[in-house]
Amino acid sequence: MELQKLLINGFRLKEELENFASFGRTENKGVTRLSLSKPDILARNYFCSCCESLGMSVRFDDMGNIYATLKGASDAPPIVMGSHLDSVKKGGRFDGTLGVLAALEVVRTLVDHQIKPRVPITIVNFTNEEGARFDPAMMSSGVIAGKFNKREILQKKDKEGITFEQALQSSGYEGSIENRLKEAAAYLELHIEQGPVLESESLDIGIVEGVVGMVCYGIEVIGESNHAGTTPMRMRKDPLFATNDLITELREKLGKLDDQLVYTMGEMNVTPNIHTVIPNKVVFSLEARHKDEEVIRKVEEIIAELPAIVGDCSVKAEKRWSRDTVWFDKKLCDHMENSTQSLGYSYKKMFSGAGHDAQFIASFIPSVMIFAPSKNGQSHCEAEFTSYEEYTKAANVLLDTVVSLIK
Amino acid sequence: MELQKLLINGFRLKEELENFASFGRTENKGVTRLSLSKPDILARNYFCSCCESLGMSVRFDDMGNIYATLKGASDAPPIVMGSHLDSVKKGGRFDGTLGVLAALEVVRTLVDHQIKPRVPITIVNFTNEEGARFDPAMMSSGVIAGKFNKREILQKKDKEGITFEQALQSSGYEGSIENRLKEAAAYLELHIEQGPVLESESLDIGIVEGVVGMVCYGIEVIGESNHAGTTPMRMRKDPLFATNDLITELREKLGKLDDQLVYTMGEMNVTPNIHTVIPNKVVFSLEARHKDEEVIRKVEEIIAELPAIVGDCSVKAEKRWSRDTVWFDKKLCDHMENSTQSLGYSYKKMFSGAGHDAQFIASFIPSVMIFAPSKNGQSHCEAEFTSYEEYTKAANVLLDTVVSLIK
Repeated sequence: MELQKLLINGFRLKEELENFASFGRTENKGVTRLSLSKPDILARNYFCSCCESLGMSVRFDDMGNIYATLKGASDAPPIVMGSHLDSVKKGGRFDGTLGVLAALEVVRTLVDHQIKPRVPITIVNFTNEEGARFDPAMMSSGVIAGKFNKREILQKKDKEGITFEQALQSSGYEGSIENRLKEAAAYLELHIEQGPVLESESLDIGIVEGVVGMVCYGIEVIGESNHAGTTPMRMRKDPLFATNDLITELREKLGKLDDQLVYTMGEMNVTPNIHTVIPNKVVFSLEARHKDEEVIRKVEEIIAELPAIVGDCSVKAEKRWSRDTVWFDKKLCDHMENSTQSLGYSYKKMFSGAGHDAQFIASFIPSVMIFAPSKNGQSHCEAEFTSYEEYTKAANVLLDTVVSLIK
Repeated sequence: MELQKLLINGFRLKEELENFASFGRTENKGVTRLSLSKPDILARNYFCSCCESLGMSVRFDDMGNIYATLKGASDAPPIVMGSHLDSVKKGGRFDGTLGVLAALEVVRTLVDHQIKPRVPITIVNFTNEEGARFDPAMMSSGVIAGKFNKREILQKKDKEGITFEQALQSSGYEGSIENRLKEAAAYLELHIEQGPVLESESLDIGIVEGVVGMVCYGIEVIGESNHAGTTPMRMRKDPLFATNDLITELREKLGKLDDQLVYTMGEMNVTPNIHTVIPNKVVFSLEARHKDEEVIRKVEEIIAELPAIVGDCSVKAEKRWSRDTVWFDKKLCDHMENSTQSLGYSYKKMFSGAGHDAQFIASFIPSVMIFAPSKNGQSHCEAEFTSYEEYTKAANVLLDTVVSLIK
């Protein structure tokens, strides 16, 4: 039994967070660090030099993912920690970066205390997690997990028409396919929550049991355009009014399903969108997320039961895509819960509503995530914030979990 | 008492409609004849030559409005007929053009029958009625009626950045301010209804008593963007859901006001309009039209009574503009009704829901309009259609009304 808990150096972590915030800093203290852009390459270079000065060996794979490894007593499969250093445009300084730097701080702490791990410890930085420069998100963890076709991914273009392949080649971070993450004992990712739950319940830590499944539909309502001044109300086929009725119905039915269900109509496009013309078409998105397949199935049932005709307008719902719930490793969750309890931090077990590299990695490596609170639930914006105390606690949970795994 | 009614030559009118449909013809038998564009100038040139060959004198004013005048027995204020030759992009062949060509046909019929009118008869073609090339609509009738500031209007630009002034100067149709329409005995405008009422009631003719007044509001609903996956429903400030509630309330209250009220939410913009992000802003237009001021006042009352906060989102309604109901000349309406009855055509007295040059001209000249039916109420599209029988009847009403005025 330990007399004293090993703890990370919060000030050092804070300093590194500030250092990385300078790579792509925006006017309002956020960052724009699109994947493989100049600021991202500067961040990568600095990250690699930090790892090398700890005696870690650094390698890249064919997707530009960076792996820095601290030797273990044996060559057994490593413990892997990490996240991503890229950001969205005008994003925050914590999303992704906190996970990479907390991992770096864990290794620094082990080195400080001259702890030689039983197995190697690897820090990973995944390329283009945000999908902000090249669509889709979680691109490179997706490729190495076999979720995306590498050839198609290489041809993805950014707004300037540069392909991912070109950006990768000119970055200096294109490595060998041999270096890809394969077998590992565990993958641990610390990330900000990007939601308001921990803050609103005044909790320190989220132990993430998985990533919720989701469906996304496009619902198209077709009416008939006519002059807004000359067409009596009874003779209209107004798809905006029909959409209004549909959304009312959807909200009522979806609202009864389950407290933890989230559903969003984030996108709505009205055609021709002129104030003097009755619209002829409205298309809106309906996206719903829940951890239980059964609840998602009920959402799809509700959509399937929408009337085909509303207010003389035709209604057609089309499934755009869906994704199953990912369950993280039960044993790792238990380890992490023990660590959190032993550190005396408040916590809850929860699901992630957002997507993360860990959900792809979980398909071939036992994985788990730690959430640190997000102020006002905000992320992907310059106002994104997690306090010193909060990220220090989360990094301590990461350290303690790793220590429990390498003992 | 006449033994036989004077009637126009329907075949000749049909032929001219076909001739003019060739100026800017589209693939689907519509026309794109933006004001002062090449097709519009060709149509103007041809129109002027038709008038000149009838012995009419042609002049232009400083807004490019064309006036072709047939001498009368006296120099007393003229009877004026007309409309506009410009169209919207991919518009129909009847909107505006029918009014100009029916006027031409009336003069041709008078000339055929060697009828020398008591007062001069003028045909007018107003520049840029549609507002499709240069905003606003009814631009040039508006300027001569003192509704718009000429200096501002001259600087209006089309999509290519060409100002109205430049287009006017290079068209060859810039004339003198002295030539503007001033005093006249009457202004008569035949136009397609652009609505479905006459067709649905199987009527030949609409005698237009005026143009309905209208108000247009922009309603802005401000919420808070957050991640669609991580933000529990109870913690959202979703302006799209708030908008849904507002539109339901508006439809319910407006629907009870008056059968003849029309109201339209034609424009809706959602920000940021991304399916994975809860919107932070929705702005939609609410436009309402009715002939009675009192009904419009009640509409504004309903808007003013909207709650300031809905679903934790703030609501702000702003009046964008309004326009009072225009009443046409009662005596001219009676003349026209007599003519319609004496021709044995079915008709109804009605208001125009759309705007027309006549509503501005009515401010300084006794005015009235005739509507011909629109198939399916459609206009501003290639499918716009009025049958041979229908436009011939409407042109006969125009002729008979003019004859009754010049006897």
